[in-house]
Amino acid sequence: MAQHLMQTLHVELGDRRYPIFIGSELDTAQLLAPYIQGKQVMIVTNTTVASLYLDQYSSALQGLGKDLATCVLPDGEKYKNIEHLQLIFDALLGAGFNRDCTVLALGGGVIGDMAGFAAACFQRGVYFVQVPTTLLSQVDSSVGGKTGINHPLGKNMIGAFKQPQVVLADMSHLKTLDKRELSAGLAEIIKYALLGDLDFLVWLEQHMEQLVAGDLNLLAEAVYRSCAHKARIVAADEKEQGERALLNLGHTFGHAIESYLGYGQWLHGEAVATGMVMAADLSMRMGWISQAELDRVKNIINRAQLPITCPAIPLTEFLAYMSHDKKVLNGQLRLVLLKRLGQAIIYKDFDVEHMHQAILANQNLS
Amino acid sequence: MAQHLMQTLHVELGDRRYPIFIGSELDTAQLLAPYIQGKQVMIVTNTTVASLYLDQYSSALQGLGKDLATCVLPDGEKYKNIEHLQLIFDALLGAGFNRDCTVLALGGGVIGDMAGFAAACFQRGVYFVQVPTTLLSQVDSSVGGKTGINHPLGKNMIGAFKQPQVVLADMSHLKTLDKRELSAGLAEIIKYALLGDLDFLVWLEQHMEQLVAGDLNLLAEAVYRSCAHKARIVAADEKEQGERALLNLGHTFGHAIESYLGYGQWLHGEAVATGMVMAADLSMRMGWISQAELDRVKNIINRAQLPITCPAIPLTEFLAYMSHDKKVLNGQLRLVLLKRLGQAIIYKDFDVEHMHQAILANQNLS
Repeated sequence: MAQHLMQTLHVELGDRRYPIFIGSELDTAQLLAPYIQGKQVMIVTNTTVASLYLDQYSSALQGLGKDLATCVLPDGEKYKNIEHLQLIFDALLGAGFNRDCTVLALGGGVIGDMAGFAAACFQRGVYFVQVPTTLLSQVDSSVGGKTGINHPLGKNMIGAFKQPQVVLADMSHLKTLDKRELSAGLAEIIKYALLGDLDFLVWLEQHMEQLVAGDLNLLAEAVYRSCAHKARIVAADEKEQGERALLNLGHTFGHAIESYLGYGQWLHGEAVATGMVMAADLSMRMGWISQAELDRVKNIINRAQLPITCPAIPLTEFLAYMSHDKKVLNGQLRLVLLKRLGQAIIYKDFDVEHMHQAILANQNLS
Repeated sequence: MAQHLMQTLHVELGDRRYPIFIGSELDTAQLLAPYIQGKQVMIVTNTTVASLYLDQYSSALQGLGKDLATCVLPDGEKYKNIEHLQLIFDALLGAGFNRDCTVLALGGGVIGDMAGFAAACFQRGVYFVQVPTTLLSQVDSSVGGKTGINHPLGKNMIGAFKQPQVVLADMSHLKTLDKRELSAGLAEIIKYALLGDLDFLVWLEQHMEQLVAGDLNLLAEAVYRSCAHKARIVAADEKEQGERALLNLGHTFGHAIESYLGYGQWLHGEAVATGMVMAADLSMRMGWISQAELDRVKNIINRAQLPITCPAIPLTEFLAYMSHDKKVLNGQLRLVLLKRLGQAIIYKDFDVEHMHQAILANQNLS
């Protein structure tokens, strides 16, 4: 198989250091071989991805002499729950898999989060490999080891930190990705620019229409820059004691939107997009960024074909969902805000009235 | 409250170092106060223990000004499953608990394993405190951080390593403990002697009848020696890459017995007791220990009022359950055997025929 330009990034986590390979039409077997120790490999995927790519990865792993099993889950965030997690355990035990097996996640963020959590818990921890097939999972869930499932009362409330052995981000899989999913991935890419890289924001402003159109080379560059940014933060703060929390820009507001609408109505990236507008809006009300800068935030999000307002949600309910967010410490809500454009901070002493206004100002009341 | 003789043991795990306080009628509030950071404390217990000790611990924690919630599960190993784990998550989210909360396990091994696993997974990890109320959990599950739940296809197949902030082993709780449960705890205590401490075996042979009769001072000494032994091993090998696997003496056989009979029919300690007889029997067939030493193993187990034979189980089924055990690596069964009395090793090159004989010779075929 022809190997195109490939970039390699290492996430530096001591003895759990691992590489991310980024490119198009990667040589799967060659890249995976050094990172799968035992013989048993369980591919966890969903029905949509299975129909497109399961054969390719099954063949590659069988070519490596692995004992292969598969667990195909239904496609969608609404299945990211304890009942479907149990199906992965059923498959692992049904296949007689042992402590030296590898769980390979083939799919987007939902599959990565569930397969990773299963790998963290099965026999108290087995090997894990990630093949993210969506833009969002390539830049977000494939770096940093956060895994988990949702609970009816909150998103990602149950989970573990689990680092993979290796991540393969094959951009050619984006050719089959739904336009709406592509935009959802761009939301997280914009996030890295807003929270810590003004140069990257300028680059995105230059290239957004080509990215939306699916230019694989530009997307690869955007993935590399995003992953490099996240990898630096994660290496410094794996368990989110400090700096890593910056990566939650837009997420506390976004989680409230997702939770209220019901998982699966809005894509995660779409909710984060509107959440970032709310965070930027509150930052403006704090006097930290200007109206022009807020407009610049809204503009790049809008050009990525992402929502800059959410449906009308009663404020009391919006706040209740926010208070279930993991960023609440000792009952005190902490938000990631923009101290300036390209520099986020974690802040708890904001004016609550300003926060209410920032939420209400960015709801679609028509 | 009068404070009796108390011994303190530290489990040395770097920044996760924690103390175990062992004594009778411990001053709960005073001992817990330095180890509970946040305001929110969820006591996880079962119906049996709740009726005996919940008020005592609730009062102590309320006296410390904590926001208290409780989750009372039904009593028994058969509830150590994903459905009842979910009840703990429901309680935590229902109470609005955050990332800085503490989950306190008040009960035996099942409660400790489930509450610990919930603490490991809730919001990807919150604080955990253990108050083991059975002899078995005082010497076993309270040291070493292994937590988890059962799956219909195998015991403890889903779990995590989660270290507590502190462990309170109050021997006075053993006064209300069922005799059969006390013996089950003695099985694990005998295990420490057999696998690595011949002096301790001699001590147990001197005191077994007093231990069975519930002498709290002698039991405290046995708990201290057992925990110290386990703490040394766990400090050297937290994630069970090597030496820690020695602690599984009797467990691979025992898990097969428990799985075949159905969880909850035999107590864990009872299954381990017969499992240790099988491991010792195989060790004799290997020529490592003598018939007299095997008899000494059977004798101390018998004096602890524990079973030295199990019901008749078809060999094929026994072996199938053994192969689901976590000690299987790359399809190769590894057993903990006795190289000599008081010194266990992990071994995989045993004669399979010998293993079959060791299983069959210790079944009750009458």
